[in-house]
Amino acid sequence: MSPTISINDSQHLQLKPLEIPSKLLLGPGPSNAHPTVLQAMNTSPLGHLDPDFLGLMDEIQSLLRYVWQTENPLTIAVSGTGSAAMEATIANAVEPGDVVLIGVAGYFGNRLVDMAGRYGADVRSITKPWGQVFSLEELRTAMETHRPNILALVHAETSTGARQPLEGVGELCREFGTLLLVDTVTSLGGVPIFLDEWGVDLAYSCSQKGLGCPPGASPFTMSPRAWEKLQRRSTKVANWYLDMTLLSKYWGSERVYHHTAPINLYYALREALRLVAEEGLANCWQRHQKNVEYFWDRLEDVGLSLHVEREYRLPTLTTVRIPEGVDGKAIARQLLTEHGIEVGGGLGELAGKVWRVGLMGFNSRKENVDRLIEALGEVLPK
Amino acid sequence: MSPTISINDSQHLQLKPLEIPSKLLLGPGPSNAHPTVLQAMNTSPLGHLDPDFLGLMDEIQSLLRYVWQTENPLTIAVSGTGSAAMEATIANAVEPGDVVLIGVAGYFGNRLVDMAGRYGADVRSITKPWGQVFSLEELRTAMETHRPNILALVHAETSTGARQPLEGVGELCREFGTLLLVDTVTSLGGVPIFLDEWGVDLAYSCSQKGLGCPPGASPFTMSPRAWEKLQRRSTKVANWYLDMTLLSKYWGSERVYHHTAPINLYYALREALRLVAEEGLANCWQRHQKNVEYFWDRLEDVGLSLHVEREYRLPTLTTVRIPEGVDGKAIARQLLTEHGIEVGGGLGELAGKVWRVGLMGFNSRKENVDRLIEALGEVLPK
Repeated sequence: MSPTISINDSQHLQLKPLEIPSKLLLGPGPSNAHPTVLQAMNTSPLGHLDPDFLGLMDEIQSLLRYVWQTENPLTIAVSGTGSAAMEATIANAVEPGDVVLIGVAGYFGNRLVDMAGRYGADVRSITKPWGQVFSLEELRTAMETHRPNILALVHAETSTGARQPLEGVGELCREFGTLLLVDTVTSLGGVPIFLDEWGVDLAYSCSQKGLGCPPGASPFTMSPRAWEKLQRRSTKVANWYLDMTLLSKYWGSERVYHHTAPINLYYALREALRLVAEEGLANCWQRHQKNVEYFWDRLEDVGLSLHVEREYRLPTLTTVRIPEGVDGKAIARQLLTEHGIEVGGGLGELAGKVWRVGLMGFNSRKENVDRLIEALGEVLPK
Repeated sequence: MSPTISINDSQHLQLKPLEIPSKLLLGPGPSNAHPTVLQAMNTSPLGHLDPDFLGLMDEIQSLLRYVWQTENPLTIAVSGTGSAAMEATIANAVEPGDVVLIGVAGYFGNRLVDMAGRYGADVRSITKPWGQVFSLEELRTAMETHRPNILALVHAETSTGARQPLEGVGELCREFGTLLLVDTVTSLGGVPIFLDEWGVDLAYSCSQKGLGCPPGASPFTMSPRAWEKLQRRSTKVANWYLDMTLLSKYWGSERVYHHTAPINLYYALREALRLVAEEGLANCWQRHQKNVEYFWDRLEDVGLSLHVEREYRLPTLTTVRIPEGVDGKAIARQLLTEHGIEVGGGLGELAGKVWRVGLMGFNSRKENVDRLIEALGEVLPK
């Protein structure tokens, strides 16, 4: 003990027990989690090497392969939120000097550019106005120009609500000996994805959107081709926490301790995935599509219009144009304070121009659409 | 939709609802969390920019300063487990070419060596047999030899149960213009720490030990001196997720979105810190000390001996020598399967030589000591 030093109480807050008001989270995420999923976290932790916990990790791996439609052996949950899983794909795929071609049509394309640069990539980017997508021809032209080691695309751009079609992109990448890296943060669980059919080599997602889980444990997958590139590296992965050469030994049969997993979040993720499996992936996708189409119709009823062309709209996230003369931030604040409903604002090119409304996972339900439309009717200027 | 591709059901597990057997976690962590802390996670998430959530972040910051006894403005919880917070200190403090001197007397000293190397440090290390600590004189000699930019020490070596005294080390570092980086993973909340009095510039910890919270949100702090070094960097921090130049804008008054926080873990951490504040830091430290001394006495009663010299023993984690001829792994397995008690095994130099027993946070209670001693009496060879 150090009896000579007295305790400084300047930051010694005396707080009341936690009271969190319940809100309907219809922004870009987190979404509300299923009550069963929340309840799972209220369970005593197990040790990260406990056989019961290792069994649960195996279940998570299988079900992540199912929801992503992949057979990749290295399919795990990273111990962080979606951006950590994003960084895991970059850190493990990129070696200094690699040419990384990134399709930027929103905020998260730009984030990939920032991250890839930090790992020493020779970053090239192609751009589109926010809300649009790249055609296969445009991608081919860019591949011919840049001949990248890695092509990175955002399947579901959370900042715009646009869905980047991926059919044919895997074949294109194979033609050029390029790895295909895809952001599925806002698509996993809510939008049809066929990673293996599409030839995707690296993908990441989050737990708090289509999977209906709280944030903090984030899906990551890597194809055997991407794994081979990792094995050929001449330098260590520049990020210890996300190094798959180490993590694969914890998630694989060796069970070598790497770091303490966020145990209770894995309980939640396991339950969230179990519920998706129980519903069935096709049903889950269809539910998202049906509810969002109902939402789009209702929006038109109240005279609001949508930012993204119908063909490329995500079923999980809709960008609603803020009408001329309306203060979008004030409306969002009113929805939150008067109706307990969160919607998101626009980012970057779309700041002040759109609201972002998510109908994801447990929240993709007709009654949530009705509740939001009703609240909008009350807060929007007549 | 993609009607031409049919869904692959090979990984489509049909699982029963989660059932986790309750176990007493007396290993090196995670420890059991207080029921109030677990219950806090069973609360609907808020948005990461919701004013109610931002208020909770402020409470976490204040109470982390209290438990660490620091006034550092940049005191936050990192969105990952303890190793992520460790990496955050390295990533933000180290610039390529910096000389980083690391005291290695256990597994986590070695982890610092590995991480610092990945961030381009010129790593120098001094070593001691596992379970021993460095004297101030030994540190001075090493400082004179290496003249490092950063000195990194492990306050509480989780692999050995030894407490590295830090009195005087801060003054030594200031003499050499060196930043002092300290691992407090197994000390925060359970062992007296006075970061500011001791002149510590960077520290990290975890939630699942002395604070009695599940793992996943990890304390990080940085002194104004360390912050100045970060501001003078000529290159971006090589880790996006843990970049404090970005994170400080989310945790500070600007509230700029960086990544989605693990909301429900922050609820838990807030409650865990509230309970420590309610008990009072000095009382909390004394409770750990009192219960561990009772444990040490009881161990001697049953003829077991301890690895670390009494003066340097941690109150949070005890390394118990495995008696000659006893199969330590088999005993640990029996404790887990027959008595529902987890204890840890030895790592590295201590593999096969010790059990590691944690009495941390909510688990530092007399009845847990009694339960373990009783179980040991049953499983140890007579």
